[in-house]
Parts: sequence; structure tokens; C-alpha cells
Amino acid sequence: MAGLLWTPELRHNLGRWLQEDLGRGDLSALAVGDAHGHGLWLAKQPGRFCGGTLAVELFQLLNPAVQVQVLVRDGEAVAPGDELLLLHGPAAALLAGERVALNLAMRLSGVATTTANLVQQLEGSGIRLVDTRKTTPGLRLLEKYAVRCGGGHNHRMGLDDGVMLKENHLAWCGGLAAAVQRVRSEAPWPVPIIVEAETDAEAQAAVEAGVEGVLLDEFTPEAVKVLAPALRHQARQRGKPVVLEVSGVRPEQLQDYGDCHIDLISTSAPMTRSPWLDLTMRFTAR
Amino acid sequence: MAGLLWTPELRHNLGRWLQEDLGRGDLSALAVGDAHGHGLWLAKQPGRFCGGTLAVELFQLLNPAVQVQVLVRDGEAVAPGDELLLLHGPAAALLAGERVALNLAMRLSGVATTTANLVQQLEGSGIRLVDTRKTTPGLRLLEKYAVRCGGGHNHRMGLDDGVMLKENHLAWCGGLAAAVQRVRSEAPWPVPIIVEAETDAEAQAAVEAGVEGVLLDEFTPEAVKVLAPALRHQARQRGKPVVLEVSGVRPEQLQDYGDCHIDLISTSAPMTRSPWLDLTMRFTAR
Amino acid sequence: MAGLLWTPELRHNLGRWLQEDLGRGDLSALAVGDAHGHGLWLAKQPGRFCGGTLAVELFQLLNPAVQVQVLVRDGEAVAPGDELLLLHGPAAALLAGERVALNLAMRLSGVATTTANLVQQLEGSGIRLVDTRKTTPGLRLLEKYAVRCGGGHNHRMGLDDGVMLKENHLAWCGGLAAAVQRVRSEAPWPVPIIVEAETDAEAQAAVEAGVEGVLLDEFTPEAVKVLAPALRHQARQRGKPVVLEVSGVRPEQLQDYGDCHIDLISTSAPMTRSPWLDLTMRFTAR
Amino acid sequence: MAGLLWTPELRHNLGRWLQEDLGRGDLSALAVGDAHGHGLWLAKQPGRFCGGTLAVELFQLLNPAVQVQVLVRDGEAVAPGDELLLLHGPAAALLAGERVALNLAMRLSGVATTTANLVQQLEGSGIRLVDTRKTTPGLRLLEKYAVRCGGGHNHRMGLDDGVMLKENHLAWCGGLAAAVQRVRSEAPWPVPIIVEAETDAEAQAAVEAGVEGVLLDEFTPEAVKVLAPALRHQARQRGKPVVLEVSGVRPEQLQDYGDCHIDLISTSAPMTRSPWLDLTMRFTAR
Amino acid sequence: MAGLLWTPELRHNLGRWLQEDLGRGDLSALAVGDAHGHGLWLAKQPGRFCGGTLAVELFQLLNPAVQVQVLVRDGEAVAPGDELLLLHGPAAALLAGERVALNLAMRLSGVATTTANLVQQLEGSGIRLVDTRKTTPGLRLLEKYAVRCGGGHNHRMGLDDGVMLKENHLAWCGGLAAAVQRVRSEAPWPVPIIVEAETDAEAQAAVEAGVEGVLLDEFTPEAVKVLAPALRHQARQRGKPVVLEVSGVRPEQLQDYGDCHIDLISTSAPMTRSPWLDLTMRFTAR
Amino acid sequence: MAGLLWTPELRHNLGRWLQEDLGRGDLSALAVGDAHGHGLWLAKQPGRFCGGTLAVELFQLLNPAVQVQVLVRDGEAVAPGDELLLLHGPAAALLAGERVALNLAMRLSGVATTTANLVQQLEGSGIRLVDTRKTTPGLRLLEKYAVRCGGGHNHRMGLDDGVMLKENHLAWCGGLAAAVQRVRSEAPWPVPIIVEAETDAEAQAAVEAGVEGVLLDEFTPEAVKVLAPALRHQARQRGKPVVLEVSGVRPEQLQDYGDCHIDLISTSAPMTRSPWLDLTMRFTAR
Repeated sequence: MAGLLWTPELRHNLGRWLQEDLGRGDLSALAVGDAHGHGLWLAKQPGRFCGGTLAVELFQLLNPAVQVQVLVRDGEAVAPGDELLLLHGPAAALLAGERVALNLAMRLSGVATTTANLVQQLEGSGIRLVDTRKTTPGLRLLEKYAVRCGGGHNHRMGLDDGVMLKENHLAWCGGLAAAVQRVRSEAPWPVPIIVEAETDAEAQAAVEAGVEGVLLDEFTPEAVKVLAPALRHQARQRGKPVVLEVSGVRPEQLQDYGDCHIDLISTSAPMTRSPWLDLTMRFTAR
Repeated sequence: MAGLLWTPELRHNLGRWLQEDLGRGDLSALAVGDAHGHGLWLAKQPGRFCGGTLAVELFQLLNPAVQVQVLVRDGEAVAPGDELLLLHGPAAALLAGERVALNLAMRLSGVATTTANLVQQLEGSGIRLVDTRKTTPGLRLLEKYAVRCGGGHNHRMGLDDGVMLKENHLAWCGGLAAAVQRVRSEAPWPVPIIVEAETDAEAQAAVEAGVEGVLLDEFTPEAVKVLAPALRHQARQRGKPVVLEVSGVRPEQLQDYGDCHIDLISTSAPMTRSPWLDLTMRFTAR
Repeated sequence: MAGLLWTPELRHNLGRWLQEDLGRGDLSALAVGDAHGHGLWLAKQPGRFCGGTLAVELFQLLNPAVQVQVLVRDGEAVAPGDELLLLHGPAAALLAGERVALNLAMRLSGVATTTANLVQQLEGSGIRLVDTRKTTPGLRLLEKYAVRCGGGHNHRMGLDDGVMLKENHLAWCGGLAAAVQRVRSEAPWPVPIIVEAETDAEAQAAVEAGVEGVLLDEFTPEAVKVLAPALRHQARQRGKPVVLEVSGVRPEQLQDYGDCHIDLISTSAPMTRSPWLDLTMRFTAR
Repeated sequence: MAGLLWTPELRHNLGRWLQEDLGRGDLSALAVGDAHGHGLWLAKQPGRFCGGTLAVELFQLLNPAVQVQVLVRDGEAVAPGDELLLLHGPAAALLAGERVALNLAMRLSGVATTTANLVQQLEGSGIRLVDTRKTTPGLRLLEKYAVRCGGGHNHRMGLDDGVMLKENHLAWCGGLAAAVQRVRSEAPWPVPIIVEAETDAEAQAAVEAGVEGVLLDEFTPEAVKVLAPALRHQARQRGKPVVLEVSGVRPEQLQDYGDCHIDLISTSAPMTRSPWLDLTMRFTAR
Repeated sequence: MAGLLWTPELRHNLGRWLQEDLGRGDLSALAVGDAHGHGLWLAKQPGRFCGGTLAVELFQLLNPAVQVQVLVRDGEAVAPGDELLLLHGPAAALLAGERVALNLAMRLSGVATTTANLVQQLEGSGIRLVDTRKTTPGLRLLEKYAVRCGGGHNHRMGLDDGVMLKENHLAWCGGLAAAVQRVRSEAPWPVPIIVEAETDAEAQAAVEAGVEGVLLDEFTPEAVKVLAPALRHQARQRGKPVVLEVSGVRPEQLQDYGDCHIDLISTSAPMTRSPWLDLTMRFTAR
Repeated sequence: MAGLLWTPELRHNLGRWLQEDLGRGDLSALAVGDAHGHGLWLAKQPGRFCGGTLAVELFQLLNPAVQVQVLVRDGEAVAPGDELLLLHGPAAALLAGERVALNLAMRLSGVATTTANLVQQLEGSGIRLVDTRKTTPGLRLLEKYAVRCGGGHNHRMGLDDGVMLKENHLAWCGGLAAAVQRVRSEAPWPVPIIVEAETDAEAQAAVEAGVEGVLLDEFTPEAVKVLAPALRHQARQRGKPVVLEVSGVRPEQLQDYGDCHIDLISTSAPMTRSPWLDLTMRFTAR
């Protein structure tokens, strides 16, 4: 699952995040001199853990003398008191990397935990929970990784791996058919087009235009239950399936959409409404 | 308030965050061609706004043809429907920068809002609410700026502008007196030393060692009410004041510490427990 | 057309390319002191021009005092002697940027010219000529832009905006169905899947697996003429269209595929077999 | 031969080129999971190979678990079917690095091959074939390395390691003598001066001015046969030898200059007219 | 002592400094081919050595095949002829890194040596010698490290780890009390405030305002001997100690301040008046 | 003179140097709010000024609202009290850039001043004073610019724009003739070769090998007076002039070499033995 993650840029970012905390050097570390010791990561709340792989890379970058043993893999459920990682090495390095590594893991575990809770509500429905482009600047790949760790799926990773036409695009370019035509003639193959619809008519026009996906924004479960089958029928008639997605759903309503014959529900809640999962590093002279 | 914010590195970061979303270019913008238009930022929730200054810089960097008018200043309170920013320029640029600018502002406004709520609980007590080093990697300066926008204050900005001796440091270096001595002899002047104490005895030893601050970790209001005056008395006897800080306080308990004779309460809640404030950009051909 | 092009990273790259040539400074410029003058870009060969937009940005970056007037737009046909750009400014800046700007434009115009020649052979066939990931390291976005300027279209921009399953992937993962299943369950939506087939059976299996595209590698026109309609029929039966692409076609054979009922022909020839288009900058004291 | 090549900047560039292709991660690699395998590079055309050393560095950077064995050294001749490199490691890493490594090697081998063909035509003449500053932006050091691998030599590496005075410089600074004087008084020692001449008189004036090299631009072999000995005689009279170079020679004319008593023929053909050498990587489960 | 030094940015800087000297590669190294050899660093002057740790990192970065043995630790005194470092590895790498490593060490050893000489004059006085922000751009952390190696201490590391109010600040903000108030209300805790005073009255006002330090600029020893005890008395009355610092002292006057009851003397002399310590690398085929 | 200086990398460096001092922001600037004012640079010592051009760029980068008027041009002589630059703009920006701009100018003016003093001793001799590669890491181009501002000339700018063969090179490669041959066959044209000689015989062998320059290391004036004419005679016989350079000269001995028939004296004294020139910025509300 972590395979998608590594890029030269990620390594660069880890260095920058260390630098952000270190500044001109860890003054408190002056107190510990050359001591060596162990650090043990513990969960203080129940949830899904995410960030162990990153901690390994981060301490490796900070000081190769630090050894990190992963006790719980990214994506696994944890309970308070669970041991997550065991570190060993120079105390100064353990202290210098502690905060950055934990900040990352607490944020990402929070995202994974919220995701897992939402996914659970859709269990058995065959609907995928997907994220959005509402992500913390600088952390998009990691937060989207955390969504996968929580059992969710990713939607577009950026402005360049899919086309999403919204009301504004359409207003500015003379209507849906023109917009789709324009994009098809200039965008790379294979880039799918998704249209955000706010009315039944808009959704039908999108299917008519042959787009790959239709996003129904803020439709009630009742409305979707009627509209979705109709859109699928229309698509079948045209000889091309369409992916149906609903957005604007409040977390507590998720289950109401379970039998709505849709493919995806997109939500920014894992990014915008997740508290960090509480984790701690306990040092021992062990 | 924004004065502290600008550095060459911030401008570099804004470019990187734009790049993160743009990737190889905004494909959806193909639909809008050379159209120009207006964008209006609106609040959808009540809270404290933060991020207008950054949006100005970000759009300037993306395309100098975009003009941004700030309608609500960072740190001001907003209500649902309030107009925050008015943008005008090429539609493609408004669309390309929209998500990154809003992501920043929604996160920072969330932090400012939570901060303001906590600060309100301490009103009249003379106690400052301060943050911690639990910040999103890459966003520390901005999140700490948001805390100030919410009426809070900043604690250490990194590992290099203050010394914080915790249990681990002390264990590894042979006790408090040795640690303080070691740090004083090697750290730059003027770097203050703070000691985190978990018992009365530790707090008293810290004052005895002449440190600038003592952080009482997870002490009850009752305990602090007794201990704080005693520590101040002890400090006065030694001829040097001490700053008293409490940490580990749950948000709902804040008021209980209002008459505890302490200077600071530090909390990571604005960073770790804030939902994003809901903001939106509405495009108009105006 | 240039809209897709600009990103913070492109500006960074222009600076690096200038630096590559400048090194520690242009020593020859010592000869010209503070003189000002004009530079005029001329075509020395017939072809498609590409690179004017970049030259504007590059000289702007080098020295804002240089003014560049674009006489021929990217993508237009040029004949020997045609005037392309008119520059005016400090002679030292014109000389310092000359080589880098021309190197870019000569390479990109070469790519655009080859593309235009290939596209012409498919005129009227309804088949799109698309490029590949065989691009010069560091220049991918620009070379793919040049393909568009030549009338071609872009295929995948990188490893992350489309899935292409080749023989090796299939060998390593236990067959096509398993591979498609695995990718569908982990890749972001909307990411299309393309399968490279070397036999009729492989192509049919791909359609059966419901992928978005099938790439027929090194099939003769005769073979394609039979296979393509069959695949389309099979896809129609399954209720989902498939995009058919042929690769491994030698430039001189392109026309033979004109009536093969395919959608795309992909070729690396614009990148791997294009001579640079000969352009020159003539300086005048005008 | 590779000794000159390595710098911290080259390593940085390799990372950037990987990033350019990887973007947000190799989606197709999802299909292969944790499989390990072998990759074998094969030549598909005859020519000079160049790029093995770089491939070793690139895969090392991508994933240290990949092992690369060089079977043919940079600069050696290859025939179709020759095995060039043997790689072993995680399939996902082999796939992620394949395209970038091959793109580099195909381009550089193309340059080396063209160079070798041109050099062969000058065999026995004692004349060196040298390159120019017409190089692909971002690849100058590597393309010039490929020229050396093909048996050619390098001319100026940038604007800062030699002075080249052309018509424009001279027009802007009041004539040759003034220009040489100005450069000698401000440029670092030891920076040689070369003058580009378009007439016999200009060449003679350059020798008179005591420059280190004269470049005869677009002179016929007949003209050079008369002029070169005269210039050498003139130089000898002045007590200082001069290096004589001819440019603007079409590849097919090279041999006509073989007995022209010149030192160098400069040509951009290896960069501007080279098709890439066709190489491929074949994966095996071996 | 070196512990504070390492950050990701330092490693980045070492690479840049190598690049600055290498440019497009070490041409002279062409002469030595694949030879291996030893290099021995020798002191040619008496002083304090500083830079061995950096040399180890720098050669490691340049070529991991180079082995460096540290014979004299940073901060130790050396005499002419003393052996400092022993290197072994490829001759080309020893030559390529020689100049940069020595330039760093000669500059830093010069700083350490001057510092040690100044510190010696204050021996027994209990006064610390501290540096200033007058440092070579790009080398601040290293030069301040050299000051520590010479027995001195560091003052503020930058504009962000301490507040220093000078005449100008005060003029612009309406007096000392207002300035202190403003800073206290906006700066992070724990940031100490230092006021630079040029008269007795200013110094007294600073103590009255409760600042952490007072810097007496260009006061004579006689004046300080009277003023310092008075300020301390005043501070004691207020219940808060003050750190007293003198600046603007000429090196030859240092001893005159030995019994002035001050804590610190700040001087830029180690940075602004230090000749480099002469060191050399002798190569041997050993 | 400044023409050679500007590159994209220099602008990047100015940003980094600002960042080095600013860190997380200028806390003292909190005191001055939005005030505007003037800053005036004054010389406190006699010497050659260098750094005004850089200050203009640096403040422009920090805040375009700062206006800088250059009163004394780089390279001009100054006396104590001379006004050098006049700045106007936001007080916070003047304070934030003050130290970095002055640090650069004080160092560079120190280098220019020492250079000018040395150059004066060679006045009328026709010998050029040139620098070496002993420069502060990160500042090479600027320090070499300062040497030119002081009336000196530059020697090699790095390892790549000239070949210098020293004792070690020769030992490792089997003698001078072999080394010269090897370099000539692999280095780019036009790269001159200089040989460092420690005996008459080595110098003669170098001339015999036809190198462009011979550096006589630590020869007495008496020895040079005899050797130099002999080497020139020998070079004339071979039909190729040689540039003669002397190194290892103590500043006070410079004049003794005035009539030694040499071309260059190289010295590192401007870099290794220059105190900074004392400059100051005085703020006024003017």
C-alpha cells in the first residue's frame, strides 16, 4: 500500500519538515550529550494507525544510526496502550525527530480513523467512499494515502489527472456540449471527464454528452434513488456506462444512500473534520 | 500582525503548494479559454477568518493579472454569508488557484476559530493561551500565525528558540541541576530554559535551579492553586521571577484554571482538534 | 494552447537552463558594455514554429528590460526567411539568453514539425496521432506541448495519470483479470486502464476485462482491419465502448492504417527522430 | 571518462527526472505488488552505447535494492541484440525507473553514434571534431559527455569558460581590437579568446589581434586550403600560434576538409540531427 | 559540540559549495585517472583547529570511497606541523574536495583562533565573550560553531530568537515602555528582550521596563564600573535579575572590563578581523 | 563591472541569506509597526566600497517598497563619514535587511580595499595582481567581483575553466609530458594548461611541454629575474608565448617583483587576510 508513496520529492519534504522544527539546531539536546536509548510509540486512543513507514524514512534521513522497528503496520486498527514502533539510537536524534514524526502520524492516523468510520457505514452497499482535493497544502499525497489506509479510495489527485466541469466552467464556455468538445480535443488521452450536476436536467445532459462520470451535488437520497437508475438506463441506451457519484452528504446521512445505486460518495470529512489521533513516544533507557 | 509572516521561504512554499495541485496543468481550465470573471469568497460558518493575506500573495504568484480585494482582515469574526475576498481576472487563473487558496484559508480559519473560543474562556483571568510544537508539518509558521489571529499567543517556534527539559532529558543527563548547567554553558544567550514538572518536588527543584519557566503537566486546578503561589514565593526568595505554565488541560476545563495564579496555559487543541472553517468561492461573470 | 503550460516549476526550470549556459557569467558580453540593440529571430527551414511564448518568459526572467514581440505564434507554419520574434534591449542580455532560447525553440519546433508531417498523413481518417512517454528528461511538458502545436494529441503525461498494463505487469501479477482487479481496487478514480496486446486473444481478453483502452502493438494494417471491428462489436455487447490504439507503426506506413477503424496511433517519432528546426537570431543596431 | 561527470547537481537532476515521470506515483505498478525480477537492456540498432553509468546511479537513487550490472561500457560499439545492462530487484522499481533511464540512454547513445560516424570521416586527418553550445536545455553536460563517448571533443561548455567574439559583439563595441582589449582587461586569466570570421580580412585581423583561436564560418574547403596556411604563417611571424577551426560544414562534406591544415571542425549535428538509438528493456522472472 | 550543527540544510550547503568549485567538473583531475592516494592535512600556523567534522561530511558527500581519519578534534590547539586529518581514496576525489574543505577549515579555524585569544584575556573574570550577527552570509551557523570551538559563546542566532531594541526601534515606536509592551504582547514565549543603551538613563529605563538584558554600547570601563552595580541593585529591587552586556570594546581593552561586574562582552572581531589559519593538504602515494 | 555578476543563482542566494538571518521572522520589528523611514549607509573607515549593487537587489527582493539610491559606486574609494547609500521604505523592511546587506558589503569592501592596497604596490610594473581559489564557500563570485572592484584581476573561477597541474597531479600520472598529453586529449577546447613549478627544471619542462602558463611557486625575486627571461626565450624558440606567474609572495615583498619580467602575481591575501571594512546604517525619520 505504501508502494505508491515514495518519490524523490517525498524524501525532500521529510528533510524540509525536519528543518522546520530543528531550525538552527535542537538546543534541548545539549542536555543529553552522547546518551543512547529507546523510544516506544504508544496509542492513546482507538483508531487506525498511519505513519510508521514515514517515521522509518524520517529517522533514517535524520540519523542512520537510529533503528526503527515497525510493530503495527499502516492501516491496522489500534487500541489505547498498543505499542506501535520501537526506536533505538542516539538520544539526541530520537528527541530531534520525535515531534515531526509524531505530528505526521497523529494527523494521518486521524484521517485514517475518520475514513474507517465512514467506510464502515457503507459496508455491504458496494459504494466506495472517495476523498476530494480539499487537503492540507503540502500533504496531499500523504493524506490521500491515509484515506486508503482507512479503507477509502482516492478521487482526483490534482487538476491534471481528470477533468471536472462545474457550473462555472459551463457558464464561461457556452454550455456543456461545447465544454466537453473542447476538452476532448485538447486534453491528453486517457483523461476522463466528470460533470457536476445540480439538477436532474444537468445530469441527463451530461450523460447525453457521453462523459465518464456524473457527480450529483447535494441530492437527497430520495432524489438519487429515482434519478440514478434513469441515468444508468440512459447511458446504456447510448452504449456507454457512466460512473455515478454523490457529494455534499453529511457523515450521519451516509447510510441513507446505501441503496441508491450509485458508485461513489465523495467527502472531505476525513481531511476537514478529523481530530488528530493521540499518540505518544515514551523514552526509556531500556 | 502579518508582518512577521513574510519570508523568502514562504513565497517558495506558496509556489510548491500551487504545484502540488496543478501537477502538469489544470485540464479543466481547457473549457474556459480566455474568459475573465469575478470570484467572491463567502463564509458558510461563523468563526474567525484567516488566510486573506496569503490568498493575495498566492494569486499574485500564480498570475499577476488577478486582482484581489480583501474585504475581511485576518483575525476578524465572520458570520455565514459574509463576503471575504473579491477576485477578478482570467477565469483559468481563478480556477487554478481556488482550491489551494481555500484549503489554506479553511484550515487556518479553523485554527483561529478554535483558538478564539478557548481564549474567550480565559477572558479576564490574565492568563495567556499558548500553542505547542504540535503543528502540521510544513505549516508551522502559518498555523502559529492563525493562533495569533484567534487571540492566542505562541510558545516555542522550534527546537532552537527555547530549551524545554522533560523527563527524558533529565533521565539521560544525570538530573536537573546538571542539565541546566550544561545547557547554560553551551546554548546561545538569550535562550530561556523551561522545565516540565510532573510533581511538586520537580517544580520546586526547577525554581531552585533558576530556570525561566516551569511547566506543570496535568496538574489539577486544586493542586495548581496551592503550588503556584508557593513557587512564586520561592522564586521571589531567590530574586528571580518564574513563568508558570500549565499543560494537559482539556478545553472544557479551561475556566477552572482561571484563578490559579499562572501565566500560561498551553494547548495543542487549535491544531489537533479544529475542523476546517467552511468557506467557498463563488464565480460570477459580474 | 499555452494555457496548460505555465507552472511555478516551469519558471524554475527556465532559470536553471539559463544558469546552465551562463555558469559564472557571460565573458563575451564584456565586449559589448552597455550597448542596446535589436535581435530578430528568423526561420532558416520550413516547418512549424514552437517556442515563442517560452522566449518571452525566459528573457523576462533574465532581464525585464528586454522586450519581446511575438511575430509568429506557436503552432503556425513558417517558411525560410520568416521573421518570428523581435527583441529589443541591452545587448548583453540579448546575447546571454540567445542560445538557451533558441535551443529550446529549435528542439520544440523540430518536434512540432515532425508531428505536423505525420498528422497530415492521417488527415481525413479521423484517427488521432498521439505521443508516448519517450521524451527528453526534463522537457516532457514542453515536448508534449510541441506535439499539440503540431496538431497531434497527448497520451499519458506520466506514470500517474493512466494505467498501462504490459506483458511484464501481467506476467508478474497472475494474469490480466487479476491485474485489472488489483488496479481498480487501489488506483484513484477516475484513472482509465489501457492494456497492451500482442495477439488477438490478448486484445479480446482485455475487452472482456472491461478496460478503457486496448493498444495493439505492431499489428499489420490487415490484421487491424479484421480485429478492430470485432473488438468494437465485443465491447458493444458488453455495454462499454473501448478506445483502440495502434503502436509500433513506421512513419511511412501511417496511411495504411487510415481506414482501420481505430482511434489512435501512438508514435515516439516526434521525440526520437526529429532534427531540430534551424532558426537564427540576427542582431541589429536598428 | 565518466570521471568528469559526477557533481552534486547531476544527482539532483536524476531525482528531478524521475519525479517528472513518476508524478504522484506509478499507478501501473499496483499490478505487480512485491514481485521481484530481472530486466535486461538490449540494443535494437547498431551504434555507440552511452548511458549505462547513469542508469546505475538512477536506479540506486530510486531504490538501493535494485542491482545493476554493466555489460557494455559507455562509448563501446554495439550491434542489434547486444546485451547492455542486467538489472535485478523489485519489479515496481524496475518499472518505475525504466522509461527515464532508457530515455536518457537512447538520446545519449544517439548523440554518441552520430559523433562516431562523423569522427570516422576525419580519421587520419589529425582534425578534431568538436561540439557547440547547441545542446538540449538541462542536458548539456551529459550530451557533451556523449560526444566524448563517440570519439569527439568538447568546445566551450558555457558562456564562462572561453570568449567567442562574433559579428555582433564587434559591431557593438567598436571593432575587433577594442573588443579584444576590453576582454583581456576584465576576463579572468586564463580565458582564451576566439574570433568568428566570415572573410579572409576578418580572420587576418583576428590573428593580428593575437587571439588564441579563429573560427572560419562557412568557408569552402578550397578557401580554407589557401587561408589556413597563410594565417599560420602570420601567427608564426607574431610569435604566437593560433588554433584554426571551421564551422558550418555539412556532415557529408567533412572529408573535403581533411587536408585543410586546420585543427578543429565544430558541428552541432550530434545534438541537432541525431535520432535516438533504439534500446529496450526486457523483463524476465529469471 | 558538533551535535548542534547537523541539519538537512547543512548537507545541502556542503553540496552547493562543492558545486561552486567543481562547476562542470574538475578538468585537472583528468591527469590523475584512477590513481588512489593519501592526503594529510597539516597546520602551518599555531591556533585552534575547526573544520575536521565538516571535512568528513564533505568528502563523504563527494565520494563515499574517501576515508577520513580525524587526528585533531575541532576546538583543540595546534602548532605548525601538526597533523590534523588523514584522508585516503581516489586521487580525483581528494583533489576535487581539497580546496572547499580547506577553505572552510581555514576560515573557521581563523575564527576559533581569534576567539580563543580574546577569551584568554577574560580568563578568571567570569565574563563570557559572545559573538554578534555580523557573520558571513551563508556561514552563520558554522562561524558561530567556530566561536564555541574557540571557547566563546553565542549571542542571538538570528532575528527570531531574541528581541534587541535599539535606538531606531525606540524612535519609531514611541519610546521604550511602548516598545516593550508591544513586543511582549505579540512575540512568542519565551523570547527575552534586550535593550541597547547609550546613556545611563536609557539603561535605567530598560531595567525599569523589566527587560531580560541591557547592552551598554561603547561605555568606558570606568563608567561601567559605576553603572553596572547600580543597575543590578535596581533590578534586585524590582525582583528580577538583569543580564548586563557591554559592546563596542576594542580587543586590546578587553582586560580593562574584567572587574566591571558584567556578564557578557559581545564582539564581532572573530568574524570581522580574523585572518584565515594557514592549513595545507599534502598528497602522498603512501 | 557588475554585468558579469547577475545570474538566477545569485538571486536565489540573496533569498537564502535573508532567510538565514530572518529565520521565522524579525521579532524586534514588532516594535516598529507600520512606520516608514530613511536609512543612510556611512563609511567608518577609509577604503574601497563594494556591495551597493547587491544591496539594491537584496532590498528589492525583501520588499519592493524599499527604494535604494546608490551614492557611491562599487569600486570607488571612500573616506570615513562618506555617505554610500540612501534607503527609504517601511522601517520593518529596513531593519530586516540591514544586517545581511551590511555583512555582505563589509566583507566585500574589505576584500576590495586589501586588493587596492596590493595593486598600488605594483603600479607601473605592468604586472597584474590576480586572486586564487581560496574564497569563502558560497561567496566565490562575489569575492572575485570585489577583487575586480579593487583593481585586481581574477584567476581561475573554478576547477573547470582552466587546468592547473601541481606536484601531486604529476606524481600520480607519470610525469609532466604524460599529464599534458592526457589533458589535451580529453579537456574541452579552449582550456589552457598551467603548470606549477618549484624548480627551474620543472619550469623549463613545462615550457617545453607547450603549456600556456607557468606558475613559479615561492621563487625569490632574484631567482625570478634570471629565470623569467630564460623561460621567455625558450618559449619564443618554440614559437609559442608563455604567461609567467609568481605565487607565494608576502604582501610586503610585492614591490621586489616589480621588475621581474613576469605577467601575474597571484595572492590569496584579499580573501584570507582582509578585515571587514567598517560600515554602518543610520536610521532617520527624515
